[in-house]
Amino acid sequence: MTLNEAIASIKPLDEGIKNKVWERWDSLTKPPRSLGRLEEIVVQLAGIMRTDKPEIDDRYIVVMAGDHGIARSGVSAYPQEVTVQMVYNFLSGGAGINAIASTARAKVMVVDVGVAKRIDISHPYFRDYNILRGTEDFSKGPAMSRESAVKSIEVGIRVIEELNEIGFDIVGTGEMGIGNTTPSSAILKVFSPDTPLELLVGPGTGLDEDRIRRKADIIAKAIELNKPDPSDPVDVLSKVGGLEIGAIAGLVIGCASLGKPVIIDGFISTVGALLAYKISPDVLPYIIPSHLSREPGHRIALELMGLKPLLTLDMRLGEGTGSAIGMLIIDCALSAYYNMKTFEEAGVSRNV
Amino acid sequence: MTLNEAIASIKPLDEGIKNKVWERWDSLTKPPRSLGRLEEIVVQLAGIMRTDKPEIDDRYIVVMAGDHGIARSGVSAYPQEVTVQMVYNFLSGGAGINAIASTARAKVMVVDVGVAKRIDISHPYFRDYNILRGTEDFSKGPAMSRESAVKSIEVGIRVIEELNEIGFDIVGTGEMGIGNTTPSSAILKVFSPDTPLELLVGPGTGLDEDRIRRKADIIAKAIELNKPDPSDPVDVLSKVGGLEIGAIAGLVIGCASLGKPVIIDGFISTVGALLAYKISPDVLPYIIPSHLSREPGHRIALELMGLKPLLTLDMRLGEGTGSAIGMLIIDCALSAYYNMKTFEEAGVSRNV
Repeated sequence: MTLNEAIASIKPLDEGIKNKVWERWDSLTKPPRSLGRLEEIVVQLAGIMRTDKPEIDDRYIVVMAGDHGIARSGVSAYPQEVTVQMVYNFLSGGAGINAIASTARAKVMVVDVGVAKRIDISHPYFRDYNILRGTEDFSKGPAMSRESAVKSIEVGIRVIEELNEIGFDIVGTGEMGIGNTTPSSAILKVFSPDTPLELLVGPGTGLDEDRIRRKADIIAKAIELNKPDPSDPVDVLSKVGGLEIGAIAGLVIGCASLGKPVIIDGFISTVGALLAYKISPDVLPYIIPSHLSREPGHRIALELMGLKPLLTLDMRLGEGTGSAIGMLIIDCALSAYYNMKTFEEAGVSRNV
Repeated sequence: MTLNEAIASIKPLDEGIKNKVWERWDSLTKPPRSLGRLEEIVVQLAGIMRTDKPEIDDRYIVVMAGDHGIARSGVSAYPQEVTVQMVYNFLSGGAGINAIASTARAKVMVVDVGVAKRIDISHPYFRDYNILRGTEDFSKGPAMSRESAVKSIEVGIRVIEELNEIGFDIVGTGEMGIGNTTPSSAILKVFSPDTPLELLVGPGTGLDEDRIRRKADIIAKAIELNKPDPSDPVDVLSKVGGLEIGAIAGLVIGCASLGKPVIIDGFISTVGALLAYKISPDVLPYIIPSHLSREPGHRIALELMGLKPLLTLDMRLGEGTGSAIGMLIIDCALSAYYNMKTFEEAGVSRNV
């Protein structure tokens, strides 16, 4: 599917099914709505999947990887080669996301959308969909062409289509890209122009106060130079974005177009989801947020979509670690929905 | 153990072991501390269990059940018989906690500390340690004698001693007792006298605004009448508390005295933990918080101990549902700690 085809095929959730699930929840032995977000999640899943018996068995964390020209400006605590080193780490099972996804019974798929160095590996869960060997340095001009920006989104859509052929019930977003909090903060600033930049820029993998200020300066100047158009999300992505961020937007759009739930991770993933939402607000009901990152802009990115995080774990790793933990909360929600008895079955009095 | 013996045997955590775990975390392929609370939890578990290889295999949710004289004053949306009905529901596996504990691989133990009606059932995970057939109505005098208050705490300690004989790695607290947000708010008000009562009193299982105001009035008058002494936590428990709340304090003290971690659930459980903390602040490092309840006093109760919740799920069920979900976060933390590769093993560059 092209981006336009995918957007055109997004349907609203099934409200009839959602009501049916609410009725079931209200019949179970607990005060109405006392399982809070757990109840809402099952209602959402049912509305997305168009069945009042949703199951979330086959689950994937998709880690989109890309490099950033801006990383050469000292905006990260790590050298750029760590992106490719971490891709190999994901594929050999040694990273945080491998450990946590395994606990959440999710497979980890890694996609090269824009890594600087060629990744020479054959692995059932690796996809070489490289568009560019990293973006350009957006402090000097656009990060990429409009064509590459669209292509990066379509990589995400393509991955969802492929997973759909194998069969999947949920995708969690993840990413790897040294320097990628910088384009994420830049995109967020374009969509939230009245928010002071200091509230949108953070330490990423570990900058000190001085280097955070320098990072904010670089972003402010890059926006001035490139003039991204907030009413044109693809323009924003091409001017100050990143390839893996576009690909995450594509995962969200792909899931929405195929009627599948997508759980989003931290700051960078949420900015990817925000791009998708700016392209088409119809994606919103397909998104399940997971954790609140320690990166300060994350809360604001979530608020722009009216999303509230489930977890506050002070994490700032990315990779999809929050998405994977969120899948375990979904397990709890579904277990309560399927296994609790009704007031009648249990012989418990209702409220007075 | 008596309460005094248990308190006397609480040791501080092992700081040497904690440092060893921090060193391991810092060697793994992620920016330092980027797994946030997950890293802290493993450090805490290691310090509690005095090993840098902590394992959390055998896990129990202990649901303390008790009734409340104050429930006859219309402070709950449910009739008092629901307490005993829900105990049977727990023991037949039909409640929310059964479903969620099962997902978290935890067994559910139910303890009658003060249920009004005799529970006539033989079940491997039920304990009849009833002290009283419910507390007195504390709007008319003390909820219970000082002796009963101490006994209720010692029920909690006894349960931990019994579980320790079988072998356990963690206990999650839970409770059932129609009306028990009222004593919880009353206890909290005594320990936080400068906080306006409206911030400490909420809907419980589902009161409307009018009935919440009436509940607050009842609490204010009960505190005036009974004059609980904030410097004497057992006095507070006996005057305006509840038997299952005392028993939760006992679970916390029991775990601390035997060097085991305890994960606490929502508002009522946290007030039980607060009582334990007021009796002996040495219990604090043994406590792991789980979720933030929708009951407004919960945040304040956590703050009085400097605890920050991991989950924000807008739940207000009790039973130990938040504790059980928290156990899954512990699984993720331990999985990352044990399964991630070091920078050296994975050939990943460190920060610059």
